Amino acid sequence: MKILLTNDDGIYASGLRILRSELLELGEISIVAPATEQSAVGHAITLYNPLRVEEVRLNGEFYGCAVNGTPADCVKIATSELLDGPPDLVVSGINRGANVGINVLYSGTVSAATEAAIMGIPGIAVSVGDYTNPRYDAAARFTLRLARVVIKEGLPGGTALNVNVPNLPEDEIRGVMFTRQSDARFVERFERREDPRKQLYYWQAIETASSERDAEDDDDIKALTEGFISVTPLHHDMTNRRALELIRSWKLY
Amino acid sequence: MKILLTNDDGIYASGLRILRSELLELGEISIVAPATEQSAVGHAITLYNPLRVEEVRLNGEFYGCAVNGTPADCVKIATSELLDGPPDLVVSGINRGANVGINVLYSGTVSAATEAAIMGIPGIAVSVGDYTNPRYDAAARFTLRLARVVIKEGLPGGTALNVNVPNLPEDEIRGVMFTRQSDARFVERFERREDPRKQLYYWQAIETASSERDAEDDDDIKALTEGFISVTPLHHDMTNRRALELIRSWKLY
Repeated sequence: MKILLTNDDGIYASGLRILRSELLELGEISIVAPATEQSAVGHAITLYNPLRVEEVRLNGEFYGCAVNGTPADCVKIATSELLDGPPDLVVSGINRGANVGINVLYSGTVSAATEAAIMGIPGIAVSVGDYTNPRYDAAARFTLRLARVVIKEGLPGGTALNVNVPNLPEDEIRGVMFTRQSDARFVERFERREDPRKQLYYWQAIETASSERDAEDDDDIKALTEGFISVTPLHHDMTNRRALELIRSWKLY
Repeated sequence: MKILLTNDDGIYASGLRILRSELLELGEISIVAPATEQSAVGHAITLYNPLRVEEVRLNGEFYGCAVNGTPADCVKIATSELLDGPPDLVVSGINRGANVGINVLYSGTVSAATEAAIMGIPGIAVSVGDYTNPRYDAAARFTLRLARVVIKEGLPGGTALNVNVPNLPEDEIRGVMFTRQSDARFVERFERREDPRKQLYYWQAIETASSERDAEDDDDIKALTEGFISVTPLHHDMTNRRALELIRSWKLY
């Protein structure tokens, strides 16, 4: 079993190291991850600049390859150039901070798993629901369990799993829910600031999910906030089929 | 009627200028666009760096605001900070090069329209199916027509329209098809090159759509290659509902 690990927090992130330790027993692990933090890059890929690959050693041993690109770049270049053929599974994470609701679109962590799915390789993205003091252990152990099931059962073509784990001690997690991506928006604001040369700049902040929404029984945010691990199957298809039926009746000419 | 225009080719792109001229008759046009080309940035947003806004003048007149960020950043900062309240419509383009199939995920042009949709504002992304010698006129005129219908009929909540126009003289375009996003993959390859210091680097190329696929009657690529304008309604929801039903039967514990 050949498994490719990547992330969007960068190759030196703790979440990736803990994930690697936990998944080692599944087979041959390769790491190809961004050289630097790539959060909120979405499904960006690098076409206008060259990519460079650097071997990274940790504690005197080869650890993986760092790429000056995005998580989606890492999956592409690993599969095409760096590994001996495509891996059997791609796991991205463990991200610090949840990737749920509309945030999924902005997430580099998720894009790596979606990229794998596009290539026909099962992909799993794993995040922990806290940015400041993330606990990775329960998430790593759950990923091992889930990876075993994915390897055994397979995933429908083009599907990636987006996993979000509450930031709780393992024995306080209430279970697992299979969920859909919720449409909760995030509260956004821009801070207006002045630089040392008295020039105006803006800094964008995305804050916690809006509480105005009606919680839906099977959505990712509800599962996470109630202490469940959320597992959402994603694909690349963003077609709004309901809208498609509707607009077919439009008279354009 | 207040209309925000943006793109991913940058504020000085011809496609944007032609779009602006054509849509002027609809109402008050504002331009907030990336300062530099942002193709393939996907739905990236800028959280780790400040954003700066610069007023751009063309032919001695105020033209719009350039932002050192992505198309999604432009929609966010325009709506929150730069305009007097949210626009009634956001139009992104005209992009040179098609945004169909899986490429939709990588597209900065499309991400601006999706970002608008997330905010509850109707969004339209417009692309022309040729990168080297794009013809913008037919696309601009169709966008005006479509924008009128969108203003009159509205769009279902959270929906953006992804429009792709064949690179043909207007009288050779065969009509309009309402389509779904196809799952055609693109042929990817990495060129291995050596820099002047004899260091290896890679350059990623995404090539034309794979021809192996079975064309589907109502998909975006088929419409475009057969000379039709393709209009695909998109939303932010990437949940694979078929897979969700399937994995609900998994035994994890």
